[in-house]
Amino acid sequence: MMLTLYDCLESGNGHKVRHLLSLLGRDFKLVLKDIHKGETRTPAFLALNPDGRIPLLQLEDGRCLAESNAILCYLAEGTPFLPTEPFARAQTLSWLFWEQYNHEPTIAVARFWVHHLEMTEARKTQLEELHEKGRAALALMDRHLQAQDWLVGDGPTIADLSLYSYSSVSEEGGIDRAPYPALQAWLTRIEAQPGFIAMEPWSG
Amino acid sequence: MMLTLYDCLESGNGHKVRHLLSLLGRDFKLVLKDIHKGETRTPAFLALNPDGRIPLLQLEDGRCLAESNAILCYLAEGTPFLPTEPFARAQTLSWLFWEQYNHEPTIAVARFWVHHLEMTEARKTQLEELHEKGRAALALMDRHLQAQDWLVGDGPTIADLSLYSYSSVSEEGGIDRAPYPALQAWLTRIEAQPGFIAMEPWSG
Repeated sequence: MMLTLYDCLESGNGHKVRHLLSLLGRDFKLVLKDIHKGETRTPAFLALNPDGRIPLLQLEDGRCLAESNAILCYLAEGTPFLPTEPFARAQTLSWLFWEQYNHEPTIAVARFWVHHLEMTEARKTQLEELHEKGRAALALMDRHLQAQDWLVGDGPTIADLSLYSYSSVSEEGGIDRAPYPALQAWLTRIEAQPGFIAMEPWSG
Repeated sequence: MMLTLYDCLESGNGHKVRHLLSLLGRDFKLVLKDIHKGETRTPAFLALNPDGRIPLLQLEDGRCLAESNAILCYLAEGTPFLPTEPFARAQTLSWLFWEQYNHEPTIAVARFWVHHLEMTEARKTQLEELHEKGRAALALMDRHLQAQDWLVGDGPTIADLSLYSYSSVSEEGGIDRAPYPALQAWLTRIEAQPGFIAMEPWSG
């Protein structure tokens, strides 16, 4: 018996979880779901996750946990990736919530649109708004990382892992990272960790 | 010396935090910021929160914590509002992340648009999309609450508090709650808790 991860390889939300599992050296069974074929909206999958999304972690006893950042917290508990000191823990969570509200909905959504949606004139205008907000998110991270090597404290946490995945492929959604050298150096630091795994290239 | 909360009374994200502080019986200093006058984007405020948003919790020692749900976790640690059992804790976090990704960006944003933005034809179409997604979010909660009184476990947690605030005023954004009786009963249970505080009416 082991952990099962329901996932889709092009998802950065899924990558976060696979990345942490790799850094922790944990075995798991990977079950791929094609989100473009509705495989996360079948009655069988909705019984596991009523929200119909990957990643979804199924524990050894069959219970399921949704939301990538909640999965990170669950898996990281008791490891250096989730600080125990109350304020450092709170800052880690703050970055995780910021990621889901400001970063993923702009940078990840721009990447999805560029690859999967027909670019109507209305969407082009909305894509420009996503790019503007996405650049603001990367700029905020860059300013923060000018003063410190990791988002929280002196070493990598799940805040870094959560924000790494879509940051590392921002150009796939049309957002250049050249203006953010501190962010780039941080990406390189993460990529140097033993157990690092990269985002998958688009399968097409 | 006490906690300081930078806030805006019409914000449900701020309400969550004031609600928990009230339930816990904690004193705090409230500093109101008018988001419509740019008071969270001044250099002085950005020095406290580079993201330029309320609510922002300032600790006794001056350190600041952003993101409403991270603030809830910080304040609830060691209280019954944040379970310690690992899976229940993970489920609580899962609802908090779900709230910021699926619930707030639809139900809270619809409420904001209706009150503050001119309704162009393009916005009317987008508002309909927000309503559809917001109703899906409330329907998911309603199905979950048909089987249990609280979102996680046998008593109220910060998952309930986080999702209460904007759910309780969904009609202000144009989303009727009549189709969701289990959700309505859950709102009533929360309102019966000692220390409950309601969302503020719109100041205009």
